[in-house]
Amino acid sequence: MERKKALQYFNDNRESLLEKLEELIRIPSISTEAQHRGDVGRAAEWLADYLRALDMETVEILATGGAPVVYGCSKSGASGQAVGPTVLIYGHYDVQPVDPLEEWEGDPFEPRRQGDHLYARGASDMKGQIMAALISLQAAQSAGDLPIRFKFLFEGEEEIGSPNLYRFIEEHRELLACDLCLNPDTGMLGPELPTITYALRGLAYFELRLRGPSQDLHSGSFGGAVHNPAQVLCELIAGLHDPDGRVAVPGFYDRVRDLEEEERRELARLPVDEVFLTKTAGVKKLWGERGYTPVERIGARPTLEVNGLLSGFTGEGSKTVLPATAMAKLSCRLVADQKPEEVKRQLEQVLRDRVPDTVSWELIPLAGSPPVQSRRDSLGVSALSAAFERVWGKRPLFRREGGTVPIGAYLQELLGVDSVQTGFSLPDDNAHSPNEKLHLPTWSRGIEGLIHFYYNLSDSGAGDPQGGRSLNGEDK
Amino acid sequence: MERKKALQYFNDNRESLLEKLEELIRIPSISTEAQHRGDVGRAAEWLADYLRALDMETVEILATGGAPVVYGCSKSGASGQAVGPTVLIYGHYDVQPVDPLEEWEGDPFEPRRQGDHLYARGASDMKGQIMAALISLQAAQSAGDLPIRFKFLFEGEEEIGSPNLYRFIEEHRELLACDLCLNPDTGMLGPELPTITYALRGLAYFELRLRGPSQDLHSGSFGGAVHNPAQVLCELIAGLHDPDGRVAVPGFYDRVRDLEEEERRELARLPVDEVFLTKTAGVKKLWGERGYTPVERIGARPTLEVNGLLSGFTGEGSKTVLPATAMAKLSCRLVADQKPEEVKRQLEQVLRDRVPDTVSWELIPLAGSPPVQSRRDSLGVSALSAAFERVWGKRPLFRREGGTVPIGAYLQELLGVDSVQTGFSLPDDNAHSPNEKLHLPTWSRGIEGLIHFYYNLSDSGAGDPQGGRSLNGEDK
Repeated sequence: MERKKALQYFNDNRESLLEKLEELIRIPSISTEAQHRGDVGRAAEWLADYLRALDMETVEILATGGAPVVYGCSKSGASGQAVGPTVLIYGHYDVQPVDPLEEWEGDPFEPRRQGDHLYARGASDMKGQIMAALISLQAAQSAGDLPIRFKFLFEGEEEIGSPNLYRFIEEHRELLACDLCLNPDTGMLGPELPTITYALRGLAYFELRLRGPSQDLHSGSFGGAVHNPAQVLCELIAGLHDPDGRVAVPGFYDRVRDLEEEERRELARLPVDEVFLTKTAGVKKLWGERGYTPVERIGARPTLEVNGLLSGFTGEGSKTVLPATAMAKLSCRLVADQKPEEVKRQLEQVLRDRVPDTVSWELIPLAGSPPVQSRRDSLGVSALSAAFERVWGKRPLFRREGGTVPIGAYLQELLGVDSVQTGFSLPDDNAHSPNEKLHLPTWSRGIEGLIHFYYNLSDSGAGDPQGGRSLNGEDK
Repeated sequence: MERKKALQYFNDNRESLLEKLEELIRIPSISTEAQHRGDVGRAAEWLADYLRALDMETVEILATGGAPVVYGCSKSGASGQAVGPTVLIYGHYDVQPVDPLEEWEGDPFEPRRQGDHLYARGASDMKGQIMAALISLQAAQSAGDLPIRFKFLFEGEEEIGSPNLYRFIEEHRELLACDLCLNPDTGMLGPELPTITYALRGLAYFELRLRGPSQDLHSGSFGGAVHNPAQVLCELIAGLHDPDGRVAVPGFYDRVRDLEEEERRELARLPVDEVFLTKTAGVKKLWGERGYTPVERIGARPTLEVNGLLSGFTGEGSKTVLPATAMAKLSCRLVADQKPEEVKRQLEQVLRDRVPDTVSWELIPLAGSPPVQSRRDSLGVSALSAAFERVWGKRPLFRREGGTVPIGAYLQELLGVDSVQTGFSLPDDNAHSPNEKLHLPTWSRGIEGLIHFYYNLSDSGAGDPQGGRSLNGEDK
């Protein structure tokens, strides 16, 4: 049986495969730092070489406006013909900077094994995850051809916000055409809690500027006769929530998908309760939209946050100014099927309706990214869920993330495909912090899980994962 | 007749008296600049010498925590016995800095006569006003003793907020005991618009700090479950005004004196209309408490202003932070008989009642000064009004100022006396700006006005100006 052979291959070659990960880690591919531009290129080369050794049909390093994309496409499966789905594997080979260096217990780019952990920058985020995907494929290949076509999209700018990714995908739709995407960058909630992230919130971020008087005024000489734009701003913002904690913008919830009872039960399994969130946030008490649990509010409900406020005098002491301007940074986290452009129009309408004629306003969009939500009964999710259950002996957790990662939304918009988001990083892996690490037992189980995932997809036999055939009756 | 003699004296000696003002102006007594500390002291000495030449009983330079106070007390009137009121003349001998120096058309401390104007720092604010008070007294003295006792309180720290003045008055109550105060630091609305300021608003200035989470949070990971302190701040501030533009703080208006019809008619004479204020403020449209004219709202009604707002991320671009804290600078302009401490308690009660239990708050008082309002039918106001009418041939304007000058409130609180506020500076005198100037024809008429003022007070004969005997039936 091929699965067994493939798992055996990984087991037999674990040490040398881990050494390959260590090789990749040694390349300090920090995308934010200009002096590491060469290292970023070297990491791309290294990955292209690794892919080439995996018997690909094509491996290319493709230019973007910034760091290159490593693209690969496997041969077309058994006897030269893919009969199963095409899986696009996403990853980023760039890493975060290492500051503050003095807090590291060793060289960040010299991997150090200690107990169950491998310490190094990028070990967890996400060179370890890229290598998990490649090693599991390598193991499967060693046992014979799979009836799946694999494609690879490894970018080098994720840690600086993927500024060239949307355009790259848009310009390479055919090259990237696939049935589903595997993105192993979202991680697990604990070593015994295999996790599939099926939704991430989108973002619509604005700067709202109000202008009242032509210059700052003396609050004694004018106060009482001139409308204070800081007061107007506060009144506008106060009007953006109702007493139930809902966003009071007409039309805002029109496209929001309701949570079904079954999904709510699933989310209730997540080990993220009020006590945990209260402690992590350092608040006296949680808050939010009436009728939803905190996990639901973070994952499945849209928000409107004030990210910043600035007006008038903010230094030490007192200055009796009636400010000329007032500014707020406002952002909405969006859930399917909200659209950033539509939320912008809704906010503009609110401002047209509510801003008094004593001040003028401007709403400047600063960032926008749509939400992404995959069906939990899609082929990809079902195949991965069954795979994890096989390795961990339990159903994985199904999670919605409150944050925004644009790749899934880009692929949904531009290629029309769902992503299955997972990964084998853990919350205490110090991603973005000193002493980043990878938990090796979890990583190994992850590789085993991905081997099963590939075979599950192969067994499904179909090139149409959107049909939603479930491999695991329980997680519909 | 003494009045005539006194006026003649001024007329005959105008040039040499003006040269004395120029002497005082040449001392660069900038109180904010440490390198001018010696000059501040020299200006005090100069004034003490000038007073001594005026036949005083006492002249002293009294130490404070900062620049000294020049104190003087005249001999006790005709035949050595004062029978009329004791008048305290207030002034400050310090001046504003001169930056930007390059915008001056000459040396700021070398007085330059050009047409009707005398250009120099301090010419208008307020060395010219101090000298007007002294020269008019000198003129009257030249014609014979007046049955009035004069006291003088000249401070050297007005331009830095009079940090030692309250305590000085408190510690010298007996020395300063008087029946009324003349403060010639408030100016006129135009050369043909003699003005008496009978009220100034007080101030209660606070910093309101809210704290939510223990540190800034990721708005994706926590947004929807954590109460955003910037949002809470906006909601609190929005609740501080009602739809009629009134301050929505319980008890806030309890002590506010109503405007009587007669006073409203008087205020309506002021040449400060909607068009003028709209243009000066540079706004599209005025705003304010329903039921009051702009002039009434600025002078006679209390306010609550947002002087500053600060929270979260305020730089360029977008940062998806859910802020840990939010801060507002809030200040109330107060009118008689509101008290800063009481307004503080009222605001605290509002916060106790309205701040949700998801955040904590702190209200820090930063400045407080009571409002001041003199009776318009007091002896001082009546005497000055009649004097101005005699010189200008028209009734003066009676004005409330929206700003805050603490001296009047201090004297009311500590000595129990009303102040009559006036002066011969004009709105276009560039006080605090380059090319400060004094309009000499107005200054001369002001000196004539003060001569009549002193004689009017003498004629009243009484040591009890609080009795409110009016010298001018019209301005009750």
